[in-house]
Amino acid sequence: MANKSLAKDHADTCVLVTGGAGFIGSHTCVELLNQGYRVVVVDDLSNSSEVALDRVRRITGVDDDRLAFYEANVLDRAALAQVFEEHDIDAIIHFAGFKAVGESVQKPLEYYWNNFAGTLVLCDVARDHGVKNIVFSSSATVYGEPEFIPITEDCPKHEATNPYGQTKSMLEQVLTDLYVGDNEWNVVLLRYFNPIGAHESGLIGEDPKGIPNNLLPYVAQVAVGKLERVGVFGDDYPTHDGTGVRDYIHVVDLARGHVAALDWMGGKVGTGKADTLGTLAGEPADDGTRRGVGIFNLGTGTGSSVLDVIHAFERACGKTLPYEVKPRRAGDVAVNYAACDKAREELGWAAEYDLERMCADGWRWQSQNPNGYATV
Amino acid sequence: MANKSLAKDHADTCVLVTGGAGFIGSHTCVELLNQGYRVVVVDDLSNSSEVALDRVRRITGVDDDRLAFYEANVLDRAALAQVFEEHDIDAIIHFAGFKAVGESVQKPLEYYWNNFAGTLVLCDVARDHGVKNIVFSSSATVYGEPEFIPITEDCPKHEATNPYGQTKSMLEQVLTDLYVGDNEWNVVLLRYFNPIGAHESGLIGEDPKGIPNNLLPYVAQVAVGKLERVGVFGDDYPTHDGTGVRDYIHVVDLARGHVAALDWMGGKVGTGKADTLGTLAGEPADDGTRRGVGIFNLGTGTGSSVLDVIHAFERACGKTLPYEVKPRRAGDVAVNYAACDKAREELGWAAEYDLERMCADGWRWQSQNPNGYATV
Repeated sequence: MANKSLAKDHADTCVLVTGGAGFIGSHTCVELLNQGYRVVVVDDLSNSSEVALDRVRRITGVDDDRLAFYEANVLDRAALAQVFEEHDIDAIIHFAGFKAVGESVQKPLEYYWNNFAGTLVLCDVARDHGVKNIVFSSSATVYGEPEFIPITEDCPKHEATNPYGQTKSMLEQVLTDLYVGDNEWNVVLLRYFNPIGAHESGLIGEDPKGIPNNLLPYVAQVAVGKLERVGVFGDDYPTHDGTGVRDYIHVVDLARGHVAALDWMGGKVGTGKADTLGTLAGEPADDGTRRGVGIFNLGTGTGSSVLDVIHAFERACGKTLPYEVKPRRAGDVAVNYAACDKAREELGWAAEYDLERMCADGWRWQSQNPNGYATV
Repeated sequence: MANKSLAKDHADTCVLVTGGAGFIGSHTCVELLNQGYRVVVVDDLSNSSEVALDRVRRITGVDDDRLAFYEANVLDRAALAQVFEEHDIDAIIHFAGFKAVGESVQKPLEYYWNNFAGTLVLCDVARDHGVKNIVFSSSATVYGEPEFIPITEDCPKHEATNPYGQTKSMLEQVLTDLYVGDNEWNVVLLRYFNPIGAHESGLIGEDPKGIPNNLLPYVAQVAVGKLERVGVFGDDYPTHDGTGVRDYIHVVDLARGHVAALDWMGGKVGTGKADTLGTLAGEPADDGTRRGVGIFNLGTGTGSSVLDVIHAFERACGKTLPYEVKPRRAGDVAVNYAACDKAREELGWAAEYDLERMCADGWRWQSQNPNGYATV
């Protein structure tokens, strides 16, 4: 079966966003709706809240007609089929998945089932409905311990150190194999660096369950008094202040990268020579829509240390944030940041917001919603 | 939940063999039954025949009580649960899976779903029933283009060139992650080289659907006049006769390797120091059953060229077999054979049969069953 064309106006294009009620998903819905797309969200709400979608409607002023929601897991083949039958979906942005690194080590079967098998079901149902345009939420974790810095998309993949990372790396392979077996597929793999911040409205943001795994929500919860002090894992790395350096990216910039990827898939920007897979051309087909596998880093190209982040957040919230230096964690590297040339040249996209802005927006969300989306 | 102990007599041990009606599966059933095990086969017969199991019963003289059969795919959670409820399963030997390399390139989604997702379901249902002993049917394909010859288990894995090979490599990772997350798991990964031949009775053997993908069944079908001539892909490799060299192993030897692996898992042979994963000890637990991930090559340690095989088969069948030299195939390496020291030292297992015997037994099967298990 042929694939849907993306060489048309945004207003005529309907995007299925799996995991659309989550942190990155909800911000991407805002940017898609701002650009005129119709959006259908499928989310099982296992680690997210429908309130996020109410807020997305508030931010964008759209109604249910422009932003539809189905509470379902992508493993639910019947529910997915219904979505594809009720909406004329053109493309998929696939965020849905468990994402806690530590939990993935404890529950590998659950992670492989939910993330890997879920993606297979999604692709199968999509293909059955003639939809072979997919943007996949991958991660810089696929580079493992990177061979060089800044990390370009040509940097060899290395073994991930946990099942969460494995699912990202394996699914990149699966989606690539889909294209190899059927050249109608149009795949973009977006490798995220460290998304933080929140929408400037303060209405949507990251709402982790339990003790946060990542630095920023942890710092934010110290700032609102829910946690006592920030743990800094290692201060003897060869960096400007001894703490680990990462590439933090504003979640709104990241979300806009997805809109740019859709434009690229539709042949509206770029040359299509941007693949890193050698044999996969990414040239637009007769209808203008590309076919192939495009791989892009989404980062800022700038590294910030743990202490840089803590101090930027202190400026944002106007408080001193206590922290404690702890031993290095196994598997952590000193410095890790992206080369973003390819996304700039091909997608016409670059991150705009700096660390100060990320922290200011993150603080606005956290202070206005100390309990996240919960009403308590 | 604790894991079942394997530190008991074979007669008290019940082994679930998925794909037990297939080529390697049926031969393994024979060896298990010969060693006194009780066997339960789950096979969806999508690429096999129940006649094979009738033949297994004929060879071994056992009845339905010792060799039970369920026609089901391992993706069928309810069917699997019923099997575990009706039999006190102690361990699993997991063969079930699609295996055609070329088809896997054309149908990646089907291969990932059937092989990868199927294994997740199997492990999940097994765990629910307190069974965490599994022998997995892996392949030398996980070494990709091998870094050195002979290939030891320490040889780094390289990217497989097709989805079939990817599923093998990915599932090794999943099963390793299962052990990391829950040290009750007892996993053996058996990396097969090139199994050929048949049981000496001529009653069971390889029965490929359509044109065979592998050299041996192809040669055998030329010998019975069903195909015209053997294709030899490349005769300018740096080998003794210019054709590619592989490690062919008699399927009965391979089957016995699985029985040896079960004895190893039960702590009956070996030191348990045989893991290649560094941190995974494989030491017997209090009940004598090992825990960990053991990885073993199953090959002969001897390479034979394509022409060696053709000529050995000519001697077995007493005919001259026409062949045609064709261009090299992408991805084929010149020489590939196993180092088998680890299996010999730890499992107390070594291949016994040489190429002449493999061809003699293969020919007996093919000539007595020119249409395989089909009655036409």
